[in-house]
Amino acid sequence: MGDFNLKDMPWDGLHEECGVFAMYDFDGGDVASSIYYGLFALQHRGQESCGIAVSDTNGPKRNYALHKDMGLVNEVFNQEILEGMHGDIGVGHTRYSTAGSSCRENAQPLVLSYWKGLLGMAHNGNLINAEELRDELSMTGAIFQTTIDSETIAYLIARERLKSASVEEAVAKACDRIKGAYSLVVMSPRKLIAARDPQGFRPLCIGKRDNAYVIASETCALDTIGAEYIRDVEPGEIVTISPDFGIKSDKSRCVDKSRHGRCIFEYIYFARPDSDIDGISVYESRIKAGRFLAQDSPVEADLVVGVPESGNAAAQGFSLESGIPYGTAFVKNSYVGRTFIKPKQASRQSSVQVKLNALREVVRGKRIIMIDDSIVRGTTSDRIVKMLRDAGATEVHVRISSPPFLWPCYFGTDVPCREQLIAYKHSVDEICKIIGADSLAYLNFERLPQTVDGLEICHGCFDGNYPMDPPTKDIRGDYDE
Amino acid sequence: MGDFNLKDMPWDGLHEECGVFAMYDFDGGDVASSIYYGLFALQHRGQESCGIAVSDTNGPKRNYALHKDMGLVNEVFNQEILEGMHGDIGVGHTRYSTAGSSCRENAQPLVLSYWKGLLGMAHNGNLINAEELRDELSMTGAIFQTTIDSETIAYLIARERLKSASVEEAVAKACDRIKGAYSLVVMSPRKLIAARDPQGFRPLCIGKRDNAYVIASETCALDTIGAEYIRDVEPGEIVTISPDFGIKSDKSRCVDKSRHGRCIFEYIYFARPDSDIDGISVYESRIKAGRFLAQDSPVEADLVVGVPESGNAAAQGFSLESGIPYGTAFVKNSYVGRTFIKPKQASRQSSVQVKLNALREVVRGKRIIMIDDSIVRGTTSDRIVKMLRDAGATEVHVRISSPPFLWPCYFGTDVPCREQLIAYKHSVDEICKIIGADSLAYLNFERLPQTVDGLEICHGCFDGNYPMDPPTKDIRGDYDE
Amino acid sequence: MGDFNLKDMPWDGLHEECGVFAMYDFDGGDVASSIYYGLFALQHRGQESCGIAVSDTNGPKRNYALHKDMGLVNEVFNQEILEGMHGDIGVGHTRYSTAGSSCRENAQPLVLSYWKGLLGMAHNGNLINAEELRDELSMTGAIFQTTIDSETIAYLIARERLKSASVEEAVAKACDRIKGAYSLVVMSPRKLIAARDPQGFRPLCIGKRDNAYVIASETCALDTIGAEYIRDVEPGEIVTISPDFGIKSDKSRCVDKSRHGRCIFEYIYFARPDSDIDGISVYESRIKAGRFLAQDSPVEADLVVGVPESGNAAAQGFSLESGIPYGTAFVKNSYVGRTFIKPKQASRQSSVQVKLNALREVVRGKRIIMIDDSIVRGTTSDRIVKMLRDAGATEVHVRISSPPFLWPCYFGTDVPCREQLIAYKHSVDEICKIIGADSLAYLNFERLPQTVDGLEICHGCFDGNYPMDPPTKDIRGDYDE
Amino acid sequence: MGDFNLKDMPWDGLHEECGVFAMYDFDGGDVASSIYYGLFALQHRGQESCGIAVSDTNGPKRNYALHKDMGLVNEVFNQEILEGMHGDIGVGHTRYSTAGSSCRENAQPLVLSYWKGLLGMAHNGNLINAEELRDELSMTGAIFQTTIDSETIAYLIARERLKSASVEEAVAKACDRIKGAYSLVVMSPRKLIAARDPQGFRPLCIGKRDNAYVIASETCALDTIGAEYIRDVEPGEIVTISPDFGIKSDKSRCVDKSRHGRCIFEYIYFARPDSDIDGISVYESRIKAGRFLAQDSPVEADLVVGVPESGNAAAQGFSLESGIPYGTAFVKNSYVGRTFIKPKQASRQSSVQVKLNALREVVRGKRIIMIDDSIVRGTTSDRIVKMLRDAGATEVHVRISSPPFLWPCYFGTDVPCREQLIAYKHSVDEICKIIGADSLAYLNFERLPQTVDGLEICHGCFDGNYPMDPPTKDIRGDYDE
Repeated sequence: MGDFNLKDMPWDGLHEECGVFAMYDFDGGDVASSIYYGLFALQHRGQESCGIAVSDTNGPKRNYALHKDMGLVNEVFNQEILEGMHGDIGVGHTRYSTAGSSCRENAQPLVLSYWKGLLGMAHNGNLINAEELRDELSMTGAIFQTTIDSETIAYLIARERLKSASVEEAVAKACDRIKGAYSLVVMSPRKLIAARDPQGFRPLCIGKRDNAYVIASETCALDTIGAEYIRDVEPGEIVTISPDFGIKSDKSRCVDKSRHGRCIFEYIYFARPDSDIDGISVYESRIKAGRFLAQDSPVEADLVVGVPESGNAAAQGFSLESGIPYGTAFVKNSYVGRTFIKPKQASRQSSVQVKLNALREVVRGKRIIMIDDSIVRGTTSDRIVKMLRDAGATEVHVRISSPPFLWPCYFGTDVPCREQLIAYKHSVDEICKIIGADSLAYLNFERLPQTVDGLEICHGCFDGNYPMDPPTKDIRGDYDE
Repeated sequence: MGDFNLKDMPWDGLHEECGVFAMYDFDGGDVASSIYYGLFALQHRGQESCGIAVSDTNGPKRNYALHKDMGLVNEVFNQEILEGMHGDIGVGHTRYSTAGSSCRENAQPLVLSYWKGLLGMAHNGNLINAEELRDELSMTGAIFQTTIDSETIAYLIARERLKSASVEEAVAKACDRIKGAYSLVVMSPRKLIAARDPQGFRPLCIGKRDNAYVIASETCALDTIGAEYIRDVEPGEIVTISPDFGIKSDKSRCVDKSRHGRCIFEYIYFARPDSDIDGISVYESRIKAGRFLAQDSPVEADLVVGVPESGNAAAQGFSLESGIPYGTAFVKNSYVGRTFIKPKQASRQSSVQVKLNALREVVRGKRIIMIDDSIVRGTTSDRIVKMLRDAGATEVHVRISSPPFLWPCYFGTDVPCREQLIAYKHSVDEICKIIGADSLAYLNFERLPQTVDGLEICHGCFDGNYPMDPPTKDIRGDYDE
Repeated sequence: MGDFNLKDMPWDGLHEECGVFAMYDFDGGDVASSIYYGLFALQHRGQESCGIAVSDTNGPKRNYALHKDMGLVNEVFNQEILEGMHGDIGVGHTRYSTAGSSCRENAQPLVLSYWKGLLGMAHNGNLINAEELRDELSMTGAIFQTTIDSETIAYLIARERLKSASVEEAVAKACDRIKGAYSLVVMSPRKLIAARDPQGFRPLCIGKRDNAYVIASETCALDTIGAEYIRDVEPGEIVTISPDFGIKSDKSRCVDKSRHGRCIFEYIYFARPDSDIDGISVYESRIKAGRFLAQDSPVEADLVVGVPESGNAAAQGFSLESGIPYGTAFVKNSYVGRTFIKPKQASRQSSVQVKLNALREVVRGKRIIMIDDSIVRGTTSDRIVKMLRDAGATEVHVRISSPPFLWPCYFGTDVPCREQLIAYKHSVDEICKIIGADSLAYLNFERLPQTVDGLEICHGCFDGNYPMDPPTKDIRGDYDE
Repeated sequence: MGDFNLKDMPWDGLHEECGVFAMYDFDGGDVASSIYYGLFALQHRGQESCGIAVSDTNGPKRNYALHKDMGLVNEVFNQEILEGMHGDIGVGHTRYSTAGSSCRENAQPLVLSYWKGLLGMAHNGNLINAEELRDELSMTGAIFQTTIDSETIAYLIARERLKSASVEEAVAKACDRIKGAYSLVVMSPRKLIAARDPQGFRPLCIGKRDNAYVIASETCALDTIGAEYIRDVEPGEIVTISPDFGIKSDKSRCVDKSRHGRCIFEYIYFARPDSDIDGISVYESRIKAGRFLAQDSPVEADLVVGVPESGNAAAQGFSLESGIPYGTAFVKNSYVGRTFIKPKQASRQSSVQVKLNALREVVRGKRIIMIDDSIVRGTTSDRIVKMLRDAGATEVHVRISSPPFLWPCYFGTDVPCREQLIAYKHSVDEICKIIGADSLAYLNFERLPQTVDGLEICHGCFDGNYPMDPPTKDIRGDYDE
C-alpha cells in the first residue's frame, strides 16, 4: 500500500527535497498539462512549492512561460494558468525545504537567459560542495538571487558553455564540478537533458508516450500520464534528447558499481510503492523488509498491522512470512493539508489523534505487531502505541523496517542532527520503554542490501559510511560593509 | 484503511450531503477550535463548503461569531479566524451539494435572530416535504434567502416557539411537521439541542469531554477531539443539553423499531470505518459483507484486493472467509483535491489513472478478486479492471459489497436518476461484460440486514421499498410578475 | 474637482450608508455590466461592500444570479464573474456601515424567494422604527439572518403581498409601515420598483438608455453609463417599471412640500458635485455656500483654497464672491484605499500627512482662507492648518461651508453621538483656538435653504429639529435561554 | 493641483517606469514601515508592482527580508507582512512596465548575494546599452533571471567589486559602464548608496529624519514620512551613507551643466506637483507653462479649465496670466484601479465617460479653454472635447502645456513609436479637427527651458535631439539549440 501519505503531516517524519518531471514532445504538442499530472504523481516528494516552465522549440530562443509558487500542485495551478502555458518542451518541479529558505524566491524550476538562449532547470538532491562553488563563482563576479543548488549549477553550465561545443557538453562539465546528490533536468531552446550523479543517490527515469520523451523522478509519474517506461538514467549518465537524434547517452562519468550509493530510504519510505527504482520494485523491497523482520525478530501475536501508509507493505511482508494475519488497525484522515492548523500543545487534541484513529473492532483483545518504517525523534510512536492500547490491544510489539538512525544525511533528506535522533541517545531497550511497547526490534543493518537484491546503496544514516566524503565546513572571506 | 477517501474524487461515486458537529462547554471554554477538529474528522461527509458558528452563553443573547465559505475545513479556516471566534457553545457543518445550489449563500451553519434571541443550526439529511412546507410558510409571509432545508426548519421552530414553553418544545413541534431524513443540531442562547428523524436515516451521537457535551454525525469525530462516546441519539429522539439539567431526552416521537430505516449505505460506504453507528461498527459491517460475498459468490483465485479505500475492509472479510490471501493492488494519490483540474476527455490522462495506479509486483500473473463497494454508473469500474489486466492479472473477478442500485434516494444521498444507473438498464451478466471482468457478483439483498446485526435499515435504493412514502411532486401557485 | 474622495479615508469624516442602482432592459439585454459601471460611479456612497443581483424576466421565476462581498466594486467583481451574470433586470448596491455590523452577511442586494417568486432589493437610508418592526414580525414567526433594514422591508412586502393585488401594491403597503429614510429599489420577476420616503431624505432618480430604464441614487451614475436623465423619484412616490406599461407612478403617499426633508449634507458633502438632486446642482449649491461665507464672514487674504476634494467648490464660490484668487494648496494622494495600513499613533507619519501635502510654492508668504465642508471631531483640522503654516502661510483663516454639527443623525449618516462632536462641547472661538486658525467661521444656519433654492431640507444635525420624530428606545421582551 | 491621478487609468496616457525609496536609520530602528509610506507617496510613478527589502546592519551579512509582488502598495503589503520585516536599512520600489515583461519575476527590489555579502537594489530609468552589457556579461558566463536593468547593474557591481576597495567604488565603476537614465539605490550590508546618471534624467533626492537618512525619487515622499529635504543627488553624483562617515559624495562623474538632460516630462506630467526637482517646483513650472500658453496663444473665452489632474496647474497659470476665470469643469472618479474592468469597445460605456464627467452647471453656455498636459495618440482628447460640448460649452479651445510629441523616448518613459504619435502624422490644424476643438495650440518649444528657470533638460521627444546618442540595435550571436 501507498506509503507516501504520512509526508503531508507537516510536523512529523522525514522529507525529501524534490521531485522533477520534464517532457519534450517531438510532435510539437503542448506539454504543460502532462507535466501538471506528472508533478501531481510526484507531489509526495515535495509539498512546499512547485512550478512548471515551458518553451516553444520553434519560437524565439529566449521565449518561455513560467509559473511557480508556494503550495501544492493543485493550489498553484488552475485551468486558466495551465491553458495559457504553451510549449512543446518543459520542466516541472515539486519542492520541500527546511524552514528558513522556504520562500517564493527559491521555488523551482529556475529559468534563466544566458548567451546561448534559454535554460530551464529543475533539480532533486543536495550538493555538498555548493558553498565552495558559490564562493568560487562569486570570486569571479557571480551574483545569487536564490539559495538553491540549481542556481549554482546554472552558473557552471553557463560558464562551461563558453568553452563547450554543445549545451550537453557544458552540462557534463558542470557535473564534473559538483559533488553530492543530484538528479537534474535541463531544457535548452532545442534539447532536453537529464543528469544523475555518479552515485545515483536520487532516482531518475526515462519514459516515452507516442513521440514525446519524458524524464521523471519516479516511474509512477510515467504511469500517471500513460507513458511507457524506457529505462532509468544510470548513475553518472547524462542523457540528451532532441528530435535530431532521439536519445543520446554520455556514460563517461559512470563509475564502478561498487561506488554506487542509491539512497536506501527511497525504497524504505520516500518513493511511491508503485514505482520501480533501478529495476527494483519499491513495494517488493518493503515486503522483503517485513519478511526479514519476521525472520529475525519474530514474536507471537494475533495480528500484524502497519502504521499507514508507509508501514503497510512491510506489515504485509511480515504477515506473509510469519503466517500471522494482516489487518488494518488505523484509519487515517487524508484531508490534513499544508494549511492545517496544528493543535496547540496545551489543547486536548493531539496531532496524532487528528491524523490517525484506531479501529477498536480490529484491535480489541488482540496482541498486535505494529510495523513502522522508521523512528526519528520518537515523538509520535509513543502516541500510536498508546492509541492501540486504548483501543484494547493486550500487547503491542513494534517492528521497524529500517535500522536505527544514527547519522545525519548530506544528500537530500532532512534527517536532523544527531542530538535529535532518539537512537543516538538511547539504546533499543530504552526506546522500547520510551514508546511504551512490549517489544521493539529494528531491521538488521545487514539485511538492507538484500531488500534491494544487492544493489549498492547509501546507508550513511545508519552507519556513518557515506559513498563519498561528507562536506567539511566552508571558510568564507570577509563580507562587505 | 478507511473508505472515505474516494469521495474527494469529485467526478465519481456517490456523495452524502453533510456532517454536523456541535459542542457546549459548561466550563465556559471556547469551543471553536474543537469544532474545527471535529469538522475535520467529518470532512468526508462534505467537501464543498463548511462553517462554524459560536456564541457566548453569558453574553448578549443575539451575539455570535460566524464564519463559513466554499472549500475544505483547512481552506476556509485559518489560525486568525479561529482565534477570533469566542464562545462556549457552537455548531459546525461540512457540506456537499449537487451542482446548481452549490453557492456561498447555501453554506451552513445557518444563524438567525428571532424573537427569543439567537438560533444557530446545522443539518444533515433531506426533507421530502420541504417544498410543501416552504409553500405553506410562504403563504403566511415567509421569505427564503437560501434553498437549504435548515431555513425551512428554522422558520418552523421560530413559529412554534410562539406557542411553546421552551425552545426544545418548539424544535419538537417543528419535527412533527418535517418529513424525511434529518440529523439536526440547534443552538439557542443557552441550550444545545439535537434531533434525529424517527427512521434514523442519518447517524447522530453524543459525546462528552470533561464538562463539555458534544453532538456529532459520527463517533470518529469524538475520538478526534478526545471526547468519550456516550450514546447515539435515538431515531426520533430530541436531546436538550444545558448546564441547568445536563442532558434531557424527549423520546415521545420515537417509533417502533420496525419502522426504523437507517441508511445502509452509511455502513457500506459513507461513514468512516472507525465510526460506530447505533452500536454497530462500520468496519465490522464491511468485513461481514465481504465474508458473505465469499460464502455466496466464491471463486478460485490467488489474491483478494480492495478498490481503495472503500473496498478494502470487505476485501479483508472476503479473504478471512475464503482463505485467499489479501493484498494491496493499488496505490491511490491522496492529493487529488477540490481544485484539481480534471483531465480533458481528449487528453491522454484519464481521471482514474491520475487517481489510482496498480502495483505490478503484486498483480502480475495472478488471478485477482477485486472488491468494490458499489457500481453506480459503471464508468470507472471498466478502467480499474483494465488497469489490473495491464498490470498482468490473468483473471479479474469483481465482487460488489452491496446489491445493485435500482432506485433513487430521497433521503440525503445523490444516487442519480434510474436512467443513469447501470444496473437499471443492464443485467449482471451484461454489466460483467461492460466492465470487462471474468465474473461479477453483488452482495445478495437478503444479506444486508445481517451485515448490521439485524438493525432495521432503509434499502430503498436496492428494492424501491422506502421506510416512508417517497415525495410526490409539489404543485405551486402562480408566481409574481 | 469633486468632493467625494475624502471618504476613502477610512478614519476620518462622515459616511453615508449606501448607493443603489437598478436597471431593466425591455430589449432583453444583459444589465450586469451597466450596473457595474453604475455602482462604480456611486462608489463614494459606500466602500465597504457591494453587490449585484440580476434575473432573466423570461426565465423561471425564481432564477437569478447574485454576487456580493466585502470590498470596492473593482475588487469584488472581475470579468469572469460579470460575464457569468445573465439577466435583463437587476439591482446593485454599494455599502458603508459602522463597525460591528460590517460583515459579508450584511452585504446587499438582498435576494429572496417568497410565494410569488423572486425579490431582489437594495436600500439606501435608515429606518427609525426597524427594531419595532423586527419585534413585531418576530412575534409572528419571522426569522432574521442579517441586521439590515432591507430584510425587514422584504418581510413586510412578502406579507403585504398576500393581501395585495400586485407586488407594487405590496411595496406601497410596506412603505406605509416603515418610518425614516429610504430610497429603495426592488426587482420582482417582471417588474422594477423604486420607492422614496415621503420626506425624500435620500436622493433617487430615473434614467433611460434606449429601451432600458435605470434607477440610481445620483444622476452622475446615469451619465457614466450614457443614460438620459428623466426625472427624480419624488419624495413619497413609488414608481413601477414594466414593459407592459412603461413607467407607472403612485404618488398617494406624497406629502405636502412643507414636510419634505432632503438631507442637506447630500449637497454639502455626500453627493458627487456632478449630480443634480431634485433639480438642484450639487456643485452649484456648494458654490453658493462659498459665496455666502464670503458675504457673511469676509476676511482680508491673498488666496482662497479648498481642503480637497470636498472644500474645493465652496472655495471657488468664496473666491468668485470675494475677488480673492482661488488656488490649489494641497496635493491629495488618491491611492489611499480600503486596505491601507493606518500609521500607528506612535509612528512619525500622521494619517493626514500621508493623505495630503501642501504646495509650498503656492502657500509661502500668503494669507490663506481655507475652506472645508465641515468639522466633526476636529481631529484633522488642526493638522491641516499646521500643514499650511509649515508651508509658509502667514495667516490661516478657516471657513466651513456648513453650520456646526450639534445633533446626531438618525436618517442614514454616521454623525457620531453628541459627546464626540467638537461643536457640542466648544464655542466657535474655542474651536478656532483648538485648530490653531487665525479666524474661524461657519456657514450661517439661515443660509442653508438658500444654497438649494429654498427646497425643504432636513437640518436636524444642526438644530435638532428633524422632519419626523426621532426614534425612542425600543423595549424588547425576554430573550430565549 | 495633483496631476498624478490620470496615470491610474491603465489604458491611457504615458507612464514612467519607477519610483525608488531607501532609508538607513543609524539609530537601528526598523525602516520597513517608513518605506511603505514613502512608496505610497511614489505610487504615481508605478502601479504595476512594488516591493521592499530590508536588512539588519548588525545581523549576519547575508540576512534580509524581501517582499514584492504585482499590485499597488496597499494591495501587496498588509500589517502582518510589514511587521514581520525587521531591519534598519532598506530599499523600496514601485514599478510600471510595458506589457510583456510585466511579471512577478521582474518586480523590484532585486536582492542578491555576492562574495561580499548582500546587495539590495532598486532602479528608476532605462539603460540604452543594457543589451550590449548583457551580451558582454553573458559571454563571460553571466546568467539572467529577469529582464530588468537592475540585474545587469548588479552584475557590473559584483564584478567591479572584485577590483575595488569598497562597494561604493564598485558602484561607481559600474556607473562608468552603463549608459542612459538611472536613479539607483543600493544597499550593502553596512552602506546605503545612491547614484544618478550624469545627465540627471530622473530625479533623486536626499532627506533626513532624526538620525535616519532617506533617498527618494521625489521630495513629496520626504514630506509624507516627515523627513527634512537635504538636497538633490546631483547628476553624475554617487552618494554613500554610513554611520561611519555620514554622507560621502563622489562627484567625479559629474559633467558640465551643458550636458545635463533632466526629463522635462517629469515637470510637465510625471512628478507630483508638490515635489521639487533640482530646486525647481514642479507646480511652479506648470503654472509657468500655463502662463506662456496664455501669452503665446491667447483666445477670448469665459473660463479656463484643466483636464484633471495633470492639466489643472497649467490651467491656473493660464488664468492668472489671461485674467480669464479658472473653473472646474470635470469630476474624476478616483476609484478606477488596477483591476478595473475596461468597458468593451461595443458597449455603451466609454472609458472616458467612466473616468470623467463634466459639470454641466459650470460649462453650460460658456466658451471654454481646456488645458491638458499632452496629446499622445489623440484617442481621448476628442471624447473630452465632446463631453464639454454635450454639457453645453459653446466653444472649446484646447491648449497643451507641452510641445507636440514627435520622437520616441529611450530614457525611461513609454512614449510609443512614431507611427502611433498623432503629431507625427498630422499637422496642428489637422489634430484640431480630429479632436473637434475650435482652436488648438501647443506650448512653444522655446518656452520649455523657461518653465524650469533655464535648467538643462532633455527635450528629445519634441525635437529628436537627445543629450546622448540614442541606442543602435544590438546584434546578437547564435542562440543555443
